[in-house]
Order: sequence, then C-alpha cells, then structure tokens
Amino acid sequence: MTTGDAEQLGRRVWAIPEGFIPGRSSGDDPALRSHETVSILNAGDADAHVEITVYFEDRDPVGPYRCTVPARRTRHVRFDQLDDPAPVPRDTAYASVVRADVAVVCQHTRLDSRQAANALLSTVAYPG
Amino acid sequence: MTTGDAEQLGRRVWAIPEGFIPGRSSGDDPALRSHETVSILNAGDADAHVEITVYFEDRDPVGPYRCTVPARRTRHVRFDQLDDPAPVPRDTAYASVVRADVAVVCQHTRLDSRQAANALLSTVAYPG
Amino acid sequence: MTTGDAEQLGRRVWAIPEGFIPGRSSGDDPALRSHETVSILNAGDADAHVEITVYFEDRDPVGPYRCTVPARRTRHVRFDQLDDPAPVPRDTAYASVVRADVAVVCQHTRLDSRQAANALLSTVAYPG
Amino acid sequence: MTTGDAEQLGRRVWAIPEGFIPGRSSGDDPALRSHETVSILNAGDADAHVEITVYFEDRDPVGPYRCTVPARRTRHVRFDQLDDPAPVPRDTAYASVVRADVAVVCQHTRLDSRQAANALLSTVAYPG
Repeated sequence: MTTGDAEQLGRRVWAIPEGFIPGRSSGDDPALRSHETVSILNAGDADAHVEITVYFEDRDPVGPYRCTVPARRTRHVRFDQLDDPAPVPRDTAYASVVRADVAVVCQHTRLDSRQAANALLSTVAYPG
Repeated sequence: MTTGDAEQLGRRVWAIPEGFIPGRSSGDDPALRSHETVSILNAGDADAHVEITVYFEDRDPVGPYRCTVPARRTRHVRFDQLDDPAPVPRDTAYASVVRADVAVVCQHTRLDSRQAANALLSTVAYPG
Repeated sequence: MTTGDAEQLGRRVWAIPEGFIPGRSSGDDPALRSHETVSILNAGDADAHVEITVYFEDRDPVGPYRCTVPARRTRHVRFDQLDDPAPVPRDTAYASVVRADVAVVCQHTRLDSRQAANALLSTVAYPG
Repeated sequence: MTTGDAEQLGRRVWAIPEGFIPGRSSGDDPALRSHETVSILNAGDADAHVEITVYFEDRDPVGPYRCTVPARRTRHVRFDQLDDPAPVPRDTAYASVVRADVAVVCQHTRLDSRQAANALLSTVAYPG
C-alpha cells in the first residue's frame, strides 16, 4: 500500500448547489450558531490556493473569496465568516463553486439551530 | 487558475430517487414548513431550460415541470410549490429526474418539521 | 431535449456501507418509527428485477432479498420490512449491495426517532 | 444477474473532508454519545487491510490507524474509539483518508447529541 496516490487525491473544481445560512439560532454557543461549512482536504504535497465563488438566485455572483489550504492539511471554511469581498447574506438561497490550483476534496455541511434541537446535513460536493 | 471550466460545470441529467414531502409541520413559519428542494446551480454562460419529471410507486410519471435557471444563477426549486401540470402529493413516496439543455449541478434537500425540532437531509443528486 | 437518455439512467450495482436500524422509537406513528430505506428509481422502459444482499460485521451475508421496480416507477424499500430470507436485525451494524438487471438509481435514508425529535440522514449510494 | 462484480466493488482510496467529534453529549447511553463513523463495506472475496490517516488544520497528519475488514463483511469504525497511534481529539476540525489494499466502499456518518435531540449527517465518501 503506497501513499503516493494521496498526492493527487481529489479534483480542482467542486460545486455545491445548496446554500442557505439560517438567520436565526437558538442559544448563545457560537459553535452552535446556524452556519454552513465547506470542508476542504488537501492531502497532497503542495499548498492549495482556493477560490470560492458564490451564486445567487437574482443577482450576479460574488467572489472570489480566497484562502489557502496548506499541504497535508484540512480547512473547514465557514460561509458566515467570509467577508472579503462581501459577507454572505443570511436567509438567502445561494450556491458555491470551489476552485483550487491543485487537487482537493470538498464536503458541504449545514448546522441549523433555529430550533432548540440542531439539524445537520452533509454531502460530498460535486466534482467538476 | 481560470474560470473557463465553470462554463461546462455539471451534467445535463440528474436523478433523485428519494422523495417524500411530510404532510404535517409544526409551527406557523412558512420557511419551516416540511418541504423538499432541488437546488440547481447553473455556473455557465447560457440560460438552462430545466424539465423535472416526478416518478411514483403506483402511477405514471407526472411532468415535465419547467423552469429556467439563468446563466450564473442558482435556483432552489421547492417540490411543494410545483403545480403545473399538477401538485406533488404529500405523504407519498416519489422520485425525480432533472434534465437541462446545458450542464447544471443538482442537490436534494428535505426539511422535516413534523416534530418541534427540525430534521434535515441532503445529498448531491446522481449525475446521469 | 430528449427523454431517451432516461432509458439508461443509472447503474446496475449500488453499495450502501452504512446500515443501522435503531431498536427504539418514540411515539406510536408507524411512519415515524426508526427505519432505513433504499429508494430505487427505475426511469427506464423495462422492469427492474432487484436483489439486495445484506452484509454484517461478524456473520455471513444474508440474501438476496428480491423485489421488482416496474418501468417508470420508484420503490422505497424499508429494510425493517424485509423478511425473506430473514428479517434485518435492529441495533446491528450492517451494509448492503443492490443489484438490478437494468440500470437504476439508489439513495439511502435513515429516520432515527429514538428521541422525541427525529433525525434524518441521506446520501446517494455508491454506483459500482 | 451475476454476483461476480461484487468482488471488485468500490475503490481503494476514499476521502472524507468533514470531521468533527462534538465534545459534549446529552444523556448516558453510549450508543447516543456524539461520534463519527466511517462505514467500510468489503463485498469482495479477499480481506481488506485498511489504513486511515487523519488530517488537521494546524498540525501534521496522524496515522495510519490500521484495521482489517474481512471478506464479505462490513466494519463501522468509530473515530472516537481510535487510539493507536493517538486518540482523535474532540471539538477539533479534521479530515480523513481511507486506503485499502483491495476495493471497498466508504460512507461517513456523524451523530451529534449535544442537544437532547440527536442530529445526523451522512454521505458516501469521495472515491479517489
């Protein structure tokens, strides 16, 4: 069993059609505030320079949001913490595309804490 | 990093085998009414003309339901708001196929609010 | 836009590594009893003869469980209602493989109602 | 319908970008303690020797964690029970890569029981 195949693990473009950050949360714990995340895994030996573009139903796309995922690291990017070039609005349907200059793997997760009990969803993104 | 690959991002046929709109909801917030959604991302430069066909366990398919997802836009289609050619019945097992004339990406989500606490599920659809 | 591609939509082998039917449920509503489902969509023009094999951690596989998904129909198969050749035990880790003689599409869903509030998970199965 | 294709079902490398084991749980039932699982299905005729590597945001990867999934068996590996070479920390973002010497299929699931009501997420992992 070699580890060499990890160097190329994944794809350079990923799509997440579903996006919605609930505007309300219950409780005061920041970790339990309603949010959406794209988890990016870079299992390779080169840093990944990542650009996220956000698409809406009724206006032009916003982005790119830029971040770096170092070699052999993961980064869990919270959409509600993106602010450059602009915050992602809450209670608004959106979608996103993640592009990197090396292969990565992306998974999408939402924590919805509008009720006292949380709800979760997650799916591996679509590899473009 | 180019953005050119976004023009072709996705596929033209998508399948969602699981479909079920709970007939009950708790509370009065329309956003929290039990519902299912197919989120469609059109990251390309041409409008996508979309046809959704709904399949059942014991009757012929219904459709197509038609909508347009403009270039560089997303659209989150709620199955409980489809009504032409016919509403999608609640409390009934169904499945769906999404077809478009250009490449799009589809993700399926259900919000189940039969209890006071919501439950969520989501998955990227199957690219046919 | 043609509908011809629907005739071949999907694959003939699908894998679902995660399986677990909680032994407890809250409340008396059969629809809300903890259960797992494989939703099978046959968008084609020929009936699909389906065989499900169930795998365990510490014993030989059981199956095949057989069912038919008619042409242009879906069928949402509840694992807790399979009984031939044997019921699927509750509170036991299992996995499953779905095989059909024509192309179908499979999605896996669990409703966990051990608490008063439901939890849901779902994913398109792995196309073999 | 033959069963021969099951011998090769799946892939030898799988990626799970999302990982997070909540540090808190409600109640005393071990089955309902917050945890994450990778469910591995080996539908083939040869035992699968599996290596799991865990990636973090700010430190070097840890692993491999080793286990065997016998032929025609599944194994649901709980990340909170891995301890060699080191336990997986709670309340910490991580990702994982599963490698096997034969084809297997992997699915990722989290049970979050920080509230009295559970939340669940699941997705088939990314086949590398």
